Amino acid sequence: MSVTAAQGFTAAGIAAGIKENGNPDLALVVNNGPRRAAAGVFTSNRVKAAPVVWSEQVLKGGAVSAVVLNSGGANACTGPLGFQDTHATAEKVADALGHSAGEVAVASTGLIGLRLPMDKLLPGVDKAVAQLTPHGGEKAAIAIKTTDSVHKTAVVTQDGWTVGGMAKGAGMLAPGLATMLVVLTTDADVPSADLDTALRAATRTTFDRIDSDGCMSTNDTVLLLASGASGIVPDTDAFAEAVRTVCADLARQLIGDAEGASKDIRIEVVGAASEDDAVEVGRSIARNNLLKCAIHGEDPNWGRVLSAIGTTSAVFEPDQLNVAINDVWVCKNGSVGEDRELVDMRYREVRITADLAAGTESAVIWANDLTANYVHENSAYSS
Amino acid sequence: MSVTAAQGFTAAGIAAGIKENGNPDLALVVNNGPRRAAAGVFTSNRVKAAPVVWSEQVLKGGAVSAVVLNSGGANACTGPLGFQDTHATAEKVADALGHSAGEVAVASTGLIGLRLPMDKLLPGVDKAVAQLTPHGGEKAAIAIKTTDSVHKTAVVTQDGWTVGGMAKGAGMLAPGLATMLVVLTTDADVPSADLDTALRAATRTTFDRIDSDGCMSTNDTVLLLASGASGIVPDTDAFAEAVRTVCADLARQLIGDAEGASKDIRIEVVGAASEDDAVEVGRSIARNNLLKCAIHGEDPNWGRVLSAIGTTSAVFEPDQLNVAINDVWVCKNGSVGEDRELVDMRYREVRITADLAAGTESAVIWANDLTANYVHENSAYSS
Repeated sequence: MSVTAAQGFTAAGIAAGIKENGNPDLALVVNNGPRRAAAGVFTSNRVKAAPVVWSEQVLKGGAVSAVVLNSGGANACTGPLGFQDTHATAEKVADALGHSAGEVAVASTGLIGLRLPMDKLLPGVDKAVAQLTPHGGEKAAIAIKTTDSVHKTAVVTQDGWTVGGMAKGAGMLAPGLATMLVVLTTDADVPSADLDTALRAATRTTFDRIDSDGCMSTNDTVLLLASGASGIVPDTDAFAEAVRTVCADLARQLIGDAEGASKDIRIEVVGAASEDDAVEVGRSIARNNLLKCAIHGEDPNWGRVLSAIGTTSAVFEPDQLNVAINDVWVCKNGSVGEDRELVDMRYREVRITADLAAGTESAVIWANDLTANYVHENSAYSS
Repeated sequence: MSVTAAQGFTAAGIAAGIKENGNPDLALVVNNGPRRAAAGVFTSNRVKAAPVVWSEQVLKGGAVSAVVLNSGGANACTGPLGFQDTHATAEKVADALGHSAGEVAVASTGLIGLRLPMDKLLPGVDKAVAQLTPHGGEKAAIAIKTTDSVHKTAVVTQDGWTVGGMAKGAGMLAPGLATMLVVLTTDADVPSADLDTALRAATRTTFDRIDSDGCMSTNDTVLLLASGASGIVPDTDAFAEAVRTVCADLARQLIGDAEGASKDIRIEVVGAASEDDAVEVGRSIARNNLLKCAIHGEDPNWGRVLSAIGTTSAVFEPDQLNVAINDVWVCKNGSVGEDRELVDMRYREVRITADLAAGTESAVIWANDLTANYVHENSAYSS
């Protein structure tokens, strides 16, 4: 399953000793062809980790033969020497596999501002290469975990071809993208330009619309590799939808496992004049700390929703806003609506619907509540 | 002291019964002249409380004879009936004082989305009028508290004239402005247009640059009333500086008393290409939940500072960024700098300096850490 659900891929996940606790920390995914088409999207943070700078360059060629990923260190803000480390990692993988380093993507996750222990990482590459199998997807997904409590995989199969993938990410999750590494693979025969179109369309409405804590990572990477091993050229729309389905599934898993969270909040903005308006309003609600605290306390505090909407530039009239929490319209026409006592918030998933009454566009943003456990996880130690 | 430090003003603070716990909840400040010049700035939230809509209208006339303020209810998102309540409150004050309602400003603070108990508020106005004294400033400052642990006042006196004021606010504190009510008074003889200029200049670099929790209120109001009772026309620059000093003093007090906070964080952005860049970067750092958690944990996690800077549109090169925490330059040229073990974070005030190395402009933003107590205060009950 995971990145080896599609034909033409092998993978491995091993413990190289990068993490001091001995947990798996190095994953390798290899595309055995016949094709090596690839596409990628990366963090929009202007402070980019060395592996992001490297992999963006690799992806310009439209071909990726292998992806090496490590947890236990982000290799971000590590200067020219950190970039050399990434380069050396790609060279090591290329040598071991007999590939070109220019087709080896690198991804890292962990603490910012620390050099990677190359004396452990490079021997780890040899160990990973020795363990590559067509069933290694699960172990690869486990090796990229940081504060994730579970590993995340997803697969869609149809008409003889498959799209599968793995993801990690639990904090620093915010649009543009989230602190996460995602590798998707397919055995469909799709050229890199079409992979790019499908991947950008999919991430725009999935990973880009989850916002656990408003914090944008330096390392986010989403890669899509196509082996063509099925020999099937899929219908363009069906392929794009399969990619979107896998991305949405993984994105939902990321929110469900966010650091310290006790609630997953689905924010749907409807009645917007434009999709951009809907997304702006959804993100403003998603990032409102006071609302996130209220949801944690199972308090249907719609006033905090309105105060968040009021900070946006979206088209709306304050006295026409409507807000439902778990389908109870607690705010109508910008004022008190149905009885807030009717709102049942016992379950992990909470649905907020904000109706701007200004048009027909909509968008969904996923977020988490703000909890004492989030504060604890992110204050008790560096991560 | 407080709003009665300047000559020409009387004030009162009483318990009208708006708050169920019986604490003081109604304040009245009266300008006895000879002049009634005034200026005001209000929340930039597009969802505005009824008293904000009312008072903005009053201030257009440039004259305020009295300000009535209540805690225990924000009168926000209360529809046309909520606006009628504000109007009735102004009429009641005007009747009791023999003034025009069109010169009575109203301010409210508390829970959004609940009507005010007018059967208690209106008799409270009579009670407050009966207790007006030239020494009532302290009691007025106490009556506007919500979750504030202390009341906040500040005074500057020079050359025969005085600027004094009071403030409340402890949460929903963010630029543009913070959840706060502020009334400043002066006995200097200054026309309303000049008051407006001085007040806008002062708030731009004080209240607008505190950001406790990124949440913008529906009720923020800052008023400056001038009685002219000293008979002195002050130097324009000296007056503006006195207003700025009082605003900065009150703003610092608001951050120092923010809900659940254990640290006050002074973020100074230097080397910016423009003041706007400096402010954008400062706010991005101020609102980064992961950094706020790290500061709470006394962890000099400069990687989170860089990841916050990277989300802005300011002019900078990632490999030229420098960051100091409590004067230790833990990040130099976008990478590891001085030993982070040298950073002493035991004290409540933490200083972060971000050098963009892109120019000569700078700005200071004040923020708070993110704590389990903040989560508790804002999830355990509606506020």
